[in-house]
Amino acid sequence: MELWYTEEHTNNVRFTIKIDKQIHSEQSPFQRIDFFDTHEFGRIFTLDGIIMLTEKDEFIYHDMIVHVPMAVNPNIKKVLVIGGGDGGTVRELTRYNTIESIEMVEIDQRVVECCREYMPQTSSKLDDARVKLLFEDGIKFISNKENEYDLIIVDSTDPIGPGEGLFTEEFYRNCYKALKDDGILVNQHESPYYNNTARLMKRTHKRIKQFFPIAKVYQAHIPTYASGHWLFGFASKKYDPVKDLDDKYWNSLGLETKYYNTELHKGAFALPNYVIKMLED
Amino acid sequence: MELWYTEEHTNNVRFTIKIDKQIHSEQSPFQRIDFFDTHEFGRIFTLDGIIMLTEKDEFIYHDMIVHVPMAVNPNIKKVLVIGGGDGGTVRELTRYNTIESIEMVEIDQRVVECCREYMPQTSSKLDDARVKLLFEDGIKFISNKENEYDLIIVDSTDPIGPGEGLFTEEFYRNCYKALKDDGILVNQHESPYYNNTARLMKRTHKRIKQFFPIAKVYQAHIPTYASGHWLFGFASKKYDPVKDLDDKYWNSLGLETKYYNTELHKGAFALPNYVIKMLED
Repeated sequence: MELWYTEEHTNNVRFTIKIDKQIHSEQSPFQRIDFFDTHEFGRIFTLDGIIMLTEKDEFIYHDMIVHVPMAVNPNIKKVLVIGGGDGGTVRELTRYNTIESIEMVEIDQRVVECCREYMPQTSSKLDDARVKLLFEDGIKFISNKENEYDLIIVDSTDPIGPGEGLFTEEFYRNCYKALKDDGILVNQHESPYYNNTARLMKRTHKRIKQFFPIAKVYQAHIPTYASGHWLFGFASKKYDPVKDLDDKYWNSLGLETKYYNTELHKGAFALPNYVIKMLED
Repeated sequence: MELWYTEEHTNNVRFTIKIDKQIHSEQSPFQRIDFFDTHEFGRIFTLDGIIMLTEKDEFIYHDMIVHVPMAVNPNIKKVLVIGGGDGGTVRELTRYNTIESIEMVEIDQRVVECCREYMPQTSSKLDDARVKLLFEDGIKFISNKENEYDLIIVDSTDPIGPGEGLFTEEFYRNCYKALKDDGILVNQHESPYYNNTARLMKRTHKRIKQFFPIAKVYQAHIPTYASGHWLFGFASKKYDPVKDLDDKYWNSLGLETKYYNTELHKGAFALPNYVIKMLED
């Protein structure tokens, strides 16, 4: 028997993975949740038929969404994670002893429960004493926060379905308000390559730029996301992600990372011309 | 009717593209040659069922294989291209008025003839007066050259089939000999992501390092190659690709590029930790 999982990256492009077996499947109140064991990527976790993470390469996404802001401001103490139900972002954050509080607001409690059961590689640090899990709508949660966080990480699905509201102007305005004067907002920022995600990427950047004086985009190689060329947004009231990189401090921490390093940090903000042009449009 | 092209990136991973129609197909003395029109990528060109280039993203590969060495040494006058039958590498080289001679040694004359007919986007500059086309075995061609070239670009297929001999120790030794004292060797260097190509990537780097005092690896996002995370090798007797980058000079040329810029040049050499580790092993 052969079992193959197929994801449509566009209407004309498909990415197909050989499956060993399906581990779990359910429809939560918000989305379809699946786990598979694969020969190539180890266990994979999908939402509504889109790969969220694989055991093989989740380190790339989680390194880049966490260590980039942490290496810019070593004084980050209070962090808000919106989404991120698999726990990978929290896992990386808990490696910093200087962080005092991590609130994770995940709309779908079943994602967290399933990842605790089927994806221990990412969910292992959700019980850290500094972590507070809140199962509610991140959009509502942030609307009445003011001057409270040093860092907000939006670790969301694509802007279709439950993640849609995390890409609106109102949401970014509320993130700005919820951040302290030297606060940083990092979010997953889609891909520039295929037209469908490029459109979302441009719109997202345009919206964030309205509120944040510093709004940059950085890239990583994530082969299990559409096109493998994935972007993150770095927005701040004060810090430039390259000029203010505190590489001496970060390297003094001695954290072992499989993807991130401070040279790559600088390199990740050096975008191809066609992406720069899209962001300027 | 639906027509789909499928490429196996590994035994367990498939990349599938919707085809509008097949434009040409033949078996040359060396390999199977195909051209397709696609909805997503425009025309695509494959050899032995592996995508060599697509109209949509060939600019990424050709920008990175040509402009990186050209921005390091502005005095490059005599260039040897081994492989590169589609003409994209030659096209980018002809944009430099300072280059006096480009020899292109392609083993398969039918690749060049087919690309002239079916891929004008890349083959358009093969008639430039400075270009000399030689349809012979690059391995033999280079074996009796000495102190002759400023730049050798190995624009080859994977090290399986006709491209195999372009990844051997003997070949790199001959490249070293064929280069002048300040010569540069650039080659396509496979991908670090899947085990099958990572093995070839490590072996290639190990072999090049034996002969060249400076041997670095740089990366680009090429979504239509396996994993989208593709590497190039930069080897030189004298020049460091980052320290010796002459960005002022290169930017003064005013060349328009869709992928390459001199900030990205520096960033491309900042590799992820897992790739650095593979190269050091």
